[in-house]
Amino acid sequence: MITVKQALAEVLNLVSPLPSETVPLRQASGRTLAAPATARRDQPPFAASAMDGYAVIGLEVEPDAMFKVIGESAAGHGFDGEVKAGQTVRIFTGAPLPKGATRVVIQEDVIRNGDLITLRRNLDENPYIRPAGADFKSGDQLVPPRLLTPSDIALLASMNIDQVTVTRRPVIALMATGDELVMPGENPGPDQIIASNNFGLAALVEQHGAEARMLPIARDNRASLEAAFALCEGADMVVTIGGASVGDHDLVAQVAGDLGLERAFYKIAMRPGKPLMAGKMMGIPMLGLPGNPVSSMVCGHVYLLPAIRAMLGFPPEPRPRLQATLTCDMPANGPREHYMRARVQAGQITPFERQDSALLTVLADANALLIRPVDAPEIGKGETVDYIPLG
Amino acid sequence: MITVKQALAEVLNLVSPLPSETVPLRQASGRTLAAPATARRDQPPFAASAMDGYAVIGLEVEPDAMFKVIGESAAGHGFDGEVKAGQTVRIFTGAPLPKGATRVVIQEDVIRNGDLITLRRNLDENPYIRPAGADFKSGDQLVPPRLLTPSDIALLASMNIDQVTVTRRPVIALMATGDELVMPGENPGPDQIIASNNFGLAALVEQHGAEARMLPIARDNRASLEAAFALCEGADMVVTIGGASVGDHDLVAQVAGDLGLERAFYKIAMRPGKPLMAGKMMGIPMLGLPGNPVSSMVCGHVYLLPAIRAMLGFPPEPRPRLQATLTCDMPANGPREHYMRARVQAGQITPFERQDSALLTVLADANALLIRPVDAPEIGKGETVDYIPLG
Repeated sequence: MITVKQALAEVLNLVSPLPSETVPLRQASGRTLAAPATARRDQPPFAASAMDGYAVIGLEVEPDAMFKVIGESAAGHGFDGEVKAGQTVRIFTGAPLPKGATRVVIQEDVIRNGDLITLRRNLDENPYIRPAGADFKSGDQLVPPRLLTPSDIALLASMNIDQVTVTRRPVIALMATGDELVMPGENPGPDQIIASNNFGLAALVEQHGAEARMLPIARDNRASLEAAFALCEGADMVVTIGGASVGDHDLVAQVAGDLGLERAFYKIAMRPGKPLMAGKMMGIPMLGLPGNPVSSMVCGHVYLLPAIRAMLGFPPEPRPRLQATLTCDMPANGPREHYMRARVQAGQITPFERQDSALLTVLADANALLIRPVDAPEIGKGETVDYIPLG
Repeated sequence: MITVKQALAEVLNLVSPLPSETVPLRQASGRTLAAPATARRDQPPFAASAMDGYAVIGLEVEPDAMFKVIGESAAGHGFDGEVKAGQTVRIFTGAPLPKGATRVVIQEDVIRNGDLITLRRNLDENPYIRPAGADFKSGDQLVPPRLLTPSDIALLASMNIDQVTVTRRPVIALMATGDELVMPGENPGPDQIIASNNFGLAALVEQHGAEARMLPIARDNRASLEAAFALCEGADMVVTIGGASVGDHDLVAQVAGDLGLERAFYKIAMRPGKPLMAGKMMGIPMLGLPGNPVSSMVCGHVYLLPAIRAMLGFPPEPRPRLQATLTCDMPANGPREHYMRARVQAGQITPFERQDSALLTVLADANALLIRPVDAPEIGKGETVDYIPLG
């Protein structure tokens, strides 16, 4: 058996960053920046008022001082002239500061009478000016790799960037295998169950920036498996579900081998999800996940998501772990790293009692995988443990 | 001034849960369950083997016991006969347990010789049987409201549910207003800036299950604003950006008022994002956000996302807060609740030095809004604070 870390390193070895493509800004949220995005202007592009008020020469500001209003500067419509001694320009938030002015007195500190204003006694000392380029300057960059958030999208817009270079979405071909499977909505025979792993994994990879190509269920015979593999052409990764164990009925590895899979077959010191197949077939990275529902989803989190991130251009590394405080005592762990379905709330983590890897109800109620390292000693309530968030 | 809590209550008062629609399971991830989803079968549908091995009568298991192999039960192909004394059936993981058998001896504990098997000395005592219905039973339900995760999708599939009743996505019309704005990719005049809030908010609401309808920029004149409002028909909420302050140039409220807005205009004890407009116009909830880039995004998180969740059928309540440990001392807060851009890592939170609400670069680098309550006293490094996650 090899460790989870070793197995993940083998999987990450198979993949490399994908080419980029250009998308409109409106579609860039959730995508991964693949090339530097360079600001095409300063922001603000001019010194601007931070408040509604009156632009004046700062040195002239004192209690009871009077100024003559000579014009107005509004957002989108600056004042063309210059503010000179004893003069002021009515100004609004975000509007360009007129030439000559060095300070904005907020309107609450002013008494206006026709074209004249008089300052009040207790004046706010803030000049309320946003200098040109205070947010960013022309040429400033967002650098890849970067998963673009809604705030990033707002920033890119303000940089006047309407097209963004992002990594192409990895296409993940998902192949559920087994004579026992039927699709949801079909009528299963007495010995059959409903294919669920392919649906769950499709949702999972799409949630993390990939595109799922769901293949027809491959049956436990050579012709059906070959037909399914033929539909993987052009995918960036092939994920088979089931048939990764050493059972007599596991044809998947044989057929993939005949189709050119340079294969490694791993037994991993891991619960759930011991068997894993990994290799390249016709140049396409392939990952063989166990058919057990919970095992395949857990392996999706532990192996497939890091592979997708690596294809998107992020460093090849395990999923980041978070920390939470145990709400109960836990016994020592055995020789396999245990990914336990758990519930985190407000920094407290509680593993579910039932950890059988066949229980999708427990997985669906979980929002975390609590990680128990190999041979971890018993641990008490209140101690800190690592987890991977689900959801 | 009213509190953030009061303002949010006013906003949530405007909205109610939307009708539902039915979508294929494949498209249900990230949607909100709107009606109970009822399992159409037991899972497993039959007692099944949890391992590859041999099905026997449990009472007969003892070291060196011998059994005759009378058949095979594979996934999808059960064994039709009955296991009797001295007999066994070769069985694979997930396959139906044959009639008569009560235990599976794992293949590692067996020596096979033709049609005969002999048990080893040290036998694993686990019976390795998954009882029928151990995961869920026909009639078991997932209950609304529930944001459907990839694990839920796998569970729904295994329940044989191929169509899911979810809440319709709220359609959010986003209207940026102001003569100073141009769209990304355009050539701004010397007094102009690029519209960014509408792009950021569109990405934000779509990330949280709504559909964004981005309207053309409305100019600071009655005709342009009326034309933009006309494009809001059929939306579930109208969000205006800018023009919510009391400045002379803020026509938005006037025009919306003439179009029938029953309006409330709030000054909120909040930083950033003091002014907020909220009301109903032609029966459509309307929210007027400040035009300042960071303010509008922060108000999007604090007011708009809870409104979307309420429309999706979740209880009308503030966004849940998380807790983290301060990495620095912080001064006392003033009379306004302060949403500070901050960075959380491994449970430690660090506010950015620059909190000017015009800085989109700082917002984009933040992954959290650290919340300082009204009149909060100074607080030291190592103390716990509340935050809302961004991202």
